[in-house]
Amino acid sequence: MNRICELFSIRYPIIQGGMVWCSGWRLASAVSEAGGLGLLGAGSMHPETLRDHIHKTRLATIKPFGVNVPLLYPEMDTIMQIIADEKVPIVFTSAGSPAKWTGWMKERGIIVAHVVSGSHFAVKCEQAGVDAIVAEGFEAGGHNGRDETTTMALIPAVRKATSLPLIAAGGIASGRSIAAAMALGAEGVQIGSLFAVSEESSAHPGFKQLITSLKEGDTKLALKKLAPVRLIKNKFFEKIDEAEQSGASKEELSLILGKGRARKGIFEGDLDEGELEIGQVSAMIDKIEPVSTIIDRLVTEYNETIGKLSPL
Amino acid sequence: MNRICELFSIRYPIIQGGMVWCSGWRLASAVSEAGGLGLLGAGSMHPETLRDHIHKTRLATIKPFGVNVPLLYPEMDTIMQIIADEKVPIVFTSAGSPAKWTGWMKERGIIVAHVVSGSHFAVKCEQAGVDAIVAEGFEAGGHNGRDETTTMALIPAVRKATSLPLIAAGGIASGRSIAAAMALGAEGVQIGSLFAVSEESSAHPGFKQLITSLKEGDTKLALKKLAPVRLIKNKFFEKIDEAEQSGASKEELSLILGKGRARKGIFEGDLDEGELEIGQVSAMIDKIEPVSTIIDRLVTEYNETIGKLSPL
Repeated sequence: MNRICELFSIRYPIIQGGMVWCSGWRLASAVSEAGGLGLLGAGSMHPETLRDHIHKTRLATIKPFGVNVPLLYPEMDTIMQIIADEKVPIVFTSAGSPAKWTGWMKERGIIVAHVVSGSHFAVKCEQAGVDAIVAEGFEAGGHNGRDETTTMALIPAVRKATSLPLIAAGGIASGRSIAAAMALGAEGVQIGSLFAVSEESSAHPGFKQLITSLKEGDTKLALKKLAPVRLIKNKFFEKIDEAEQSGASKEELSLILGKGRARKGIFEGDLDEGELEIGQVSAMIDKIEPVSTIIDRLVTEYNETIGKLSPL
Repeated sequence: MNRICELFSIRYPIIQGGMVWCSGWRLASAVSEAGGLGLLGAGSMHPETLRDHIHKTRLATIKPFGVNVPLLYPEMDTIMQIIADEKVPIVFTSAGSPAKWTGWMKERGIIVAHVVSGSHFAVKCEQAGVDAIVAEGFEAGGHNGRDETTTMALIPAVRKATSLPLIAAGGIASGRSIAAAMALGAEGVQIGSLFAVSEESSAHPGFKQLITSLKEGDTKLALKKLAPVRLIKNKFFEKIDEAEQSGASKEELSLILGKGRARKGIFEGDLDEGELEIGQVSAMIDKIEPVSTIIDRLVTEYNETIGKLSPL
């Protein structure tokens, strides 16, 4: 029995990343309905919007779902109270220390996973009592670790550092890459980009369309002096990149960045001035499809892939 | 039958990267003797030194071996003439266009592989008539592509772009990661860091020892304005990094870099002032072992890993 399937009571160990501006109730419920684990992305929701999406997810599916909570969110007490009041069964936390909220959530019967970018953070997760770890590599979209460790190098290191159920993230968009993640020592995968482009994603159609046209090298990790984030190389990125190349300070970069650019790009479709977060695997995504088609293909490809591996 | 084993007449589809200052006749012959493919690293040899190492490799093993040739090397005509005169059966080219020398080598019966960092380069390799492609990800040590595509994202893209035999490189140092590379669509692997630290590597013992102590995040891609290279974060790296952070120009970086730093670090063991090239997987390498032990373990681990993958 797969420990990730067992822990979350799901059919396939495929988790949909709780991405800002993409992961509302439509996406999360579609993934859970198709046998994976759907996550609402609290990082781009006001607390009452989150409550509304929890209700709508429950109306759309009776299967388990979760919420992704970036722990640096300003209204954390309110968010956590809503999650507890609404009896959300599963929470994925990221962007912060697992020490502060894990115990509080565990007391309330919530299953907790935490996202890390290095094995030393995985050890802290284990100490904090989390139930599962997501280890996310450098190729992932959006916010990203400072060590730049790739999924290939990261998963075996985290596997060695902890015995907890382990979910791989970053660079995964096919059955082949799920098989690779499993070979590296993961027991499940978290997939972002591929679901960001799905029909049920709440991202702007122009953002999805742009992603289907990207090639290798069309994303890059930017804003390393602030918080590293992988972005599409659009006009806004070029502005940031030029400033970084010429040695801009944290403060200067903050000024160029301003506020609300992820919303502007991903949700409102301003492809020039928005912050367009997506992973390197966007180069392999060439169509917008329904979640159920995506998950069926992933499972079929995975089974075909492992069937073809032969001993040396 | 595995196409890489067939092409090179080897037992295991494991190729040892032809690394500067590490890959002399001792390492190459040990890898070939153990059933993989050993490569001499011409990038750090004077032409007559290369000829000497070819002779010594032939005395140490009757099995196939090859030479890695970075095509930006100044004395390329001399190097290629030596390779042809000495009837070297296999050449891996890198750092340059495959168009110039592939035809010349093929006319002389040499099997040619070329190293790429993106699928558009793989297409050029196919047009140039190479026999196999090495696709190397961002996590690899030493010189590296500008697109920063990781092995996880790169291999499926190259697999899609070409039908040629495909070797994965970057982030591979265990049977688990060989299995991952195969799942992604590769048919063989090129391993650098792990062999750089082997007993038979010609690297300085101090360099090898340092690598066994590294952790995740202890290497970083530097000198992006010149030619991107992954280095250990030593004193020299810090100097370069500080200059890059404050917007240093190409010319200023060239001045700090100077000449001969890879030799100084890797071969002479100056761990402060040398250019210490190694991959991210160095974090997983904790001992110096003979090549035969390494290859035996890789094969055993690979077979165990694929035996444990179960269908979804």
